[in-house]
Amino acid sequence: MMDLEFLSQVQQAYRAVQNDQVAALMSFDDEALLTRDEWERADGGGGDTRILKEGKVIEKGGLNFSAVQGAVTPALAQQLDTSATRFAATGVSSVLHPCNPHVPIIHMNVRYFTLDDGTWWFGGGIDLTPHYVLPAEARLFHRDLKAICDRHAVADYGTFKPWADRYFSIPHRGESRGVGGIFFDHIGRDGGVDREEALAFCLDLSSHYAAIYKERAAPFVQSFVDADDMHWQGLRRGRYVEFNLVHDRGTRFGLVSGGRTESILMSLPPRGHWDYDHEPAPGSRQAETLEWLRKGVEGVDWLSQ
Amino acid sequence: MMDLEFLSQVQQAYRAVQNDQVAALMSFDDEALLTRDEWERADGGGGDTRILKEGKVIEKGGLNFSAVQGAVTPALAQQLDTSATRFAATGVSSVLHPCNPHVPIIHMNVRYFTLDDGTWWFGGGIDLTPHYVLPAEARLFHRDLKAICDRHAVADYGTFKPWADRYFSIPHRGESRGVGGIFFDHIGRDGGVDREEALAFCLDLSSHYAAIYKERAAPFVQSFVDADDMHWQGLRRGRYVEFNLVHDRGTRFGLVSGGRTESILMSLPPRGHWDYDHEPAPGSRQAETLEWLRKGVEGVDWLSQ
Repeated sequence: MMDLEFLSQVQQAYRAVQNDQVAALMSFDDEALLTRDEWERADGGGGDTRILKEGKVIEKGGLNFSAVQGAVTPALAQQLDTSATRFAATGVSSVLHPCNPHVPIIHMNVRYFTLDDGTWWFGGGIDLTPHYVLPAEARLFHRDLKAICDRHAVADYGTFKPWADRYFSIPHRGESRGVGGIFFDHIGRDGGVDREEALAFCLDLSSHYAAIYKERAAPFVQSFVDADDMHWQGLRRGRYVEFNLVHDRGTRFGLVSGGRTESILMSLPPRGHWDYDHEPAPGSRQAETLEWLRKGVEGVDWLSQ
Repeated sequence: MMDLEFLSQVQQAYRAVQNDQVAALMSFDDEALLTRDEWERADGGGGDTRILKEGKVIEKGGLNFSAVQGAVTPALAQQLDTSATRFAATGVSSVLHPCNPHVPIIHMNVRYFTLDDGTWWFGGGIDLTPHYVLPAEARLFHRDLKAICDRHAVADYGTFKPWADRYFSIPHRGESRGVGGIFFDHIGRDGGVDREEALAFCLDLSSHYAAIYKERAAPFVQSFVDADDMHWQGLRRGRYVEFNLVHDRGTRFGLVSGGRTESILMSLPPRGHWDYDHEPAPGSRQAETLEWLRKGVEGVDWLSQ
């Protein structure tokens, strides 16, 4: 049996997370156009998608809340490795694509899954994708994530950081998507975890999302930009598209399992570029960025940079 | 045992196909910049990638020849449904992304596969992706493909046309990629086919690629274009990216099996756009195009339009 009371508690908390994130981001970028799209899922449940666009900081961003439930289809049974017959899932996810190439892209997601065999788990993560890697900025980002993890017994930066490195890698390019962050899944699935504590960690993490982004974004919002920077931003956004469509398990599962396409693909940038075999000029900032991204999975301890 | 003499004959014929296609396209678009990239595959064989860009007709196009061989890896054994241990494959593929949104995108591919258990087969196809669907143009394109098929006992337009419709569909969008064309695979694998005849069909098809494109492209190269057309082209190119990265079996297999990423992804457009939940104005040419593309798999008999 599912604990519907706890499920409802998580759903309400995640709804509040989305509202708070939207409010904080709109206060940071008061020129962004905000739209809201509430939707229903044919097989049960629905969601609420908020889109920010054409702001002074954010060119295109999305924040999606969903609370869905239904039968465990064969595809889902395989994905979840379960013989349970009913599931419920709720989550908040967000991706922000900034206007200025010197401002990084950010992504976060927290989710909760429960099955009718009584199992449940939390998952989520947050990662930063600068178009130009600045080690000092990556260090501050990871410092913030470590501080949040350190406040919670259920969280371990030392485990979640390399997990993100493995997850947010683009094997066909031999590149990391960005400077990583933290990623976690199946927290609580094998027992031994207090669910209130797991929820508290997810809420602590997601409630700091907007503030974390503001700190990394604000100093660069007015940075000087030339045509070369814009083109490079397009190429790095192209890589973001490649990661999401080829490798990201959540995106792929959503698309092939009949999820709501527009809410899933809100993560894509407003535009992406592809040049054949583009290599930046040796010694350029772009070449330096590629060197960082090509250091190999789990290659960089950002806290020590 | 593989018939290495026939393999070599196919490789030479496909090399000639690529050279002829490049020459014909450069004569059609004499302002395009042509680059050549010969490459080797670590596990055996290699290829020759030609890129056309910044022409008066073609903004970015690629023509790739490859001739590879090696051990049948577990992934390949599963993909090919075989217990053979060695394979060889050779093919030519091409995608052309035009500058003008009123000119369609075109794609073609011919390939030959042989295994050390003595089996062999041909595959390939050609399909047209207009940014604006014009039924009369789709009819002429399909008429040309039917005429080629009708000249060869091994080819059947009535089978290959719906095969293309099924293959070049984007299920997560409920759309066809374009107006289809023909697609075929495993020709000869079950016996009963003369391999010289199968090769002759593939060469007839691929030798008409440049001429077929010229006929569909030339009348629209100078068409008037406004900002709205350019934006729409970006959105349709975004769909092309989605099809290739999410659904195209050749692209996905290449990327996850360690193929040469740049040669595989030469099929991507120079740029792609993504707007959240974009719907064109009712009654617009863009809305009309979407109506054609949403008629469902195998929905349109273009020859009768």
